[in-house]
Amino acid sequence: MSDRCNNEIHIVLVEPSHPGNIGATARAMKTMGLTSLILVRPARFPDPQADWRAAGATDVLDAAIVADDLSEAIGPCGLVVGTSTRTRRVPWPLVSPETLARNLSDGAAGGKPVAILFGRESSGLTNAELAMCQLHLQIPASPVYPSLNLAMAVQVVTYELYKTSNSATDILDWDREPATAAEIGGFIDHLQRTLEEVGFYDPRAPKQAMTRLRRLFGRIQMDETEVAMLRGVLTHVERSIRKSAADDF
Amino acid sequence: MSDRCNNEIHIVLVEPSHPGNIGATARAMKTMGLTSLILVRPARFPDPQADWRAAGATDVLDAAIVADDLSEAIGPCGLVVGTSTRTRRVPWPLVSPETLARNLSDGAAGGKPVAILFGRESSGLTNAELAMCQLHLQIPASPVYPSLNLAMAVQVVTYELYKTSNSATDILDWDREPATAAEIGGFIDHLQRTLEEVGFYDPRAPKQAMTRLRRLFGRIQMDETEVAMLRGVLTHVERSIRKSAADDF
Repeated sequence: MSDRCNNEIHIVLVEPSHPGNIGATARAMKTMGLTSLILVRPARFPDPQADWRAAGATDVLDAAIVADDLSEAIGPCGLVVGTSTRTRRVPWPLVSPETLARNLSDGAAGGKPVAILFGRESSGLTNAELAMCQLHLQIPASPVYPSLNLAMAVQVVTYELYKTSNSATDILDWDREPATAAEIGGFIDHLQRTLEEVGFYDPRAPKQAMTRLRRLFGRIQMDETEVAMLRGVLTHVERSIRKSAADDF
Repeated sequence: MSDRCNNEIHIVLVEPSHPGNIGATARAMKTMGLTSLILVRPARFPDPQADWRAAGATDVLDAAIVADDLSEAIGPCGLVVGTSTRTRRVPWPLVSPETLARNLSDGAAGGKPVAILFGRESSGLTNAELAMCQLHLQIPASPVYPSLNLAMAVQVVTYELYKTSNSATDILDWDREPATAAEIGGFIDHLQRTLEEVGFYDPRAPKQAMTRLRRLFGRIQMDETEVAMLRGVLTHVERSIRKSAADDF
């Protein structure tokens, strides 16, 4: 058995409150052959309780990256996945741990790093954080009490990844590199500016339009060429408008 | 979804040392629809730390059975399964959590209760205890560090049981009707007209641009609202350009 396929998977805890959960996460990861832990604004870290709960995985804690900014932390990733227990008003492509594991071993991230985000113990990920993700991940659980502990959720997801990456793999091929989260974020910002410039708003759902567009372009798993091409389209739109406007003077 | 199939599964912890692990086990079980916990000679129980780690599953702790004798506790069971991380000198039928789940849902216990035994944090189950089991259960884990925390092991096993007993469910849902091929075709035509109007062409692949855009919007599986929204965007772009152009005259 090899842990090779999993080297590029980052487990990202967003604002964890309890250092014990950070330690337990490190241990859960290491048992499933993962070592890259990113902590976004942890309440307490490092902490003796984290070390204690990590048991034989303190090396994962020692190598953990502490970040202030989530979007910066996930910038280089080819696929960003957010765990979610709630049903949202704007539904998102939702996968089970099993399906995620299968997609990843089919090469969904095209060799680029993958980030799997886990939210706060009390309240999970915010809508804004979930909107940064291409996929939402939901662990099957009893409707009576679906509230898995944070580190337990990491254990279940990494277990599925480990299980799948150590069975036969089949690589889906594509002719271009997948776009990174930073490239997609840059495109979304550009799109928003252009939409403002053309005065676009959706009268049926003025606030939801941008969320829907973000979701649409998030789930498409665009490659680099596609993002570059769409930004080219936006630039042409801007130039056409500005040129015409400049002619007025 | 129903938790019905799982009512006859007992989770048995043999001589757990840390009350925190007992609480975390109760929580793990309840998230996967299980409620019957048997504790054989726990070091400390009840204990405030168990209650704290159980979170919303203190009812499982309250109903837990404390037993002095393992063989008595598992007496009524039709199938006894022992978790094990080590390879034994005397080989035993060894199953993965996935296989166990499939066997149980195929009726391996013949309608009788099932006991799944988890051993001590430090040393697992003894050879004598493992010899009381019909099956040994091993969780796939990294050979570098296969040491799952006790409650984590319970979480993974109960997750597999839950998943299999509720496998008919499909969690992907969507709020709108998918767009028809005609709607998507109409959008692609509209996009092409707009691109001509803004003078867009991709210098690196002038002929391929439209093919790539068609592929991109083809694989996205857009819903009706999304297509309508994107056409709204195109209409706004056209109006912005024409309005400025008209102003020239």
